[in-house]
Amino acid sequence: MKLVGVDVGGSAIKLGVVEESGRVVQEDSVSVAAVRAAEPLFATLAGAVRRIAGADLPRGVGIGLPAMLDASRDLVRLSPNLPWLNGVRVRERLAAALALPPALVRVENDANVAALGEQWLGSARDEPDVLFLTLGTGIGSGLVLGGRLIVGKGLASEAGHLCIDPEGPPCGCGSRGCIESFASARAVGRRASEAGLPPGDPGNLELLAARAREADGPERALLLQVGRELGHALAAVVVLLDLHTFVFGGGFAAALDTMEPGIRRGVGEWARAVRVSDLSIRRAALGPSAGWIGAARLTLP
Amino acid sequence: MKLVGVDVGGSAIKLGVVEESGRVVQEDSVSVAAVRAAEPLFATLAGAVRRIAGADLPRGVGIGLPAMLDASRDLVRLSPNLPWLNGVRVRERLAAALALPPALVRVENDANVAALGEQWLGSARDEPDVLFLTLGTGIGSGLVLGGRLIVGKGLASEAGHLCIDPEGPPCGCGSRGCIESFASARAVGRRASEAGLPPGDPGNLELLAARAREADGPERALLLQVGRELGHALAAVVVLLDLHTFVFGGGFAAALDTMEPGIRRGVGEWARAVRVSDLSIRRAALGPSAGWIGAARLTLP
Repeated sequence: MKLVGVDVGGSAIKLGVVEESGRVVQEDSVSVAAVRAAEPLFATLAGAVRRIAGADLPRGVGIGLPAMLDASRDLVRLSPNLPWLNGVRVRERLAAALALPPALVRVENDANVAALGEQWLGSARDEPDVLFLTLGTGIGSGLVLGGRLIVGKGLASEAGHLCIDPEGPPCGCGSRGCIESFASARAVGRRASEAGLPPGDPGNLELLAARAREADGPERALLLQVGRELGHALAAVVVLLDLHTFVFGGGFAAALDTMEPGIRRGVGEWARAVRVSDLSIRRAALGPSAGWIGAARLTLP
Repeated sequence: MKLVGVDVGGSAIKLGVVEESGRVVQEDSVSVAAVRAAEPLFATLAGAVRRIAGADLPRGVGIGLPAMLDASRDLVRLSPNLPWLNGVRVRERLAAALALPPALVRVENDANVAALGEQWLGSARDEPDVLFLTLGTGIGSGLVLGGRLIVGKGLASEAGHLCIDPEGPPCGCGSRGCIESFASARAVGRRASEAGLPPGDPGNLELLAARAREADGPERALLLQVGRELGHALAAVVVLLDLHTFVFGGGFAAALDTMEPGIRRGVGEWARAVRVSDLSIRRAALGPSAGWIGAARLTLP
């Protein structure tokens, strides 16, 4: 059985066909950089799905959206990057565009489908329980337990907003001391600049990581400290869920090797009973394909 | 269909029969205070099950044990209160005592079955996602998501060891600043004594709670502070799982009303984006029956 998944981003729709066994059959990408409204987006998406899958959609389509969805996954509550999706009954309208019954359209948040993709076919394919974190401008996350996404009341896992210091830096969510305010790419860029370190340009953390690898200097100390802070947040995940596998995606995950010793140390500092050698700290393996692959996985029971 | 559950404690075995619909048919208790070895315990248990259920065990038997189990639930790793169970292949031997195939015997940790009981028929029966906490000498916990126990790699939820202050009091687990070291009955008794407050006797917290209810004095301030600290730990649960329902059991849960305002405040302090009015903070409803009822629930798919 072939499964079809779609990942909607701000500038492109990625989509593909994957067999139930996990073999990727086909993959495609369509620009939506010029799209500024819901209907043209849905029409473009439906056209791309028809081209890649034909009319053969026995299991329907799974779709990842950069949006906070309501609990039923019918409605977009908030999409900061595609604000014209706010309040749209997205499942019904996508189903109409695809000429499918709404029950055959599965919609999910983009970080969640990426988590599911990495758990199904990516770097956590051997492990049913995994927390996926994207280290980008913010810290997104998706939690998979027993091979199933955990979405709670709809908001799902927001591990980026685990608090490690209630007096810490202000966070975009309105709280203080969320791990996102310490360890996102943006936060680390800011911290590096404040310390007079490269990158200078907060967007370029590669130089920081390269210097941390080369010498035991202030760059290495900073990235070790960021790792420790990540570890303080992840300690709660280990203790609460007895979960040991963490997958990191997003641009700043390229520096994971420089942070990993700090992550283990940080978990141990906040959860001394945990054997930190049991932790498995991995980089995401599917890159930008994780989203559509996880979206396709949504169509399986 | 009738389900049979058993809850093994240090001094008594509680057991009962409940219909699949949730109607409790029969309940019983057998003393095991004099039992000091595995075989007599298993024989007593099997005798009690036969008396209450006859030979009619179509779904087998679910059993809660005061023990840390291995991931497969075959083996007792550690039972501090029944140390002669340590290392015993408990599922196989219970199955032999009950003359059942091992596949029809379900074994689980006692806090976990209590959590499942409260979620199935107790104070969280309307809510599939719940964290259950027992406030006793320590803080035990059980996590149910989508009506299913979360056991991770086998250790399951240990919410009592969520860290809120890595420089905090030492905890029995070897770590520091676990919420158990702030908010268990034992910890609060100690804190009250240190502050020159009743109970004096750390075992009697009823007087402390009664005084907190009567007047806005140091007793109320202490229990508000304990609530805040609980809230700091629970903030991580809300953020990570989008879970809003917390059920408190154990003796010290009798003081929950005095701590609840603090709990809401504490969650808000560590997760300001959470609407604390959405939190549902409940006392356990099934008392000492929660364990066998949850154990019986284990026998359903």
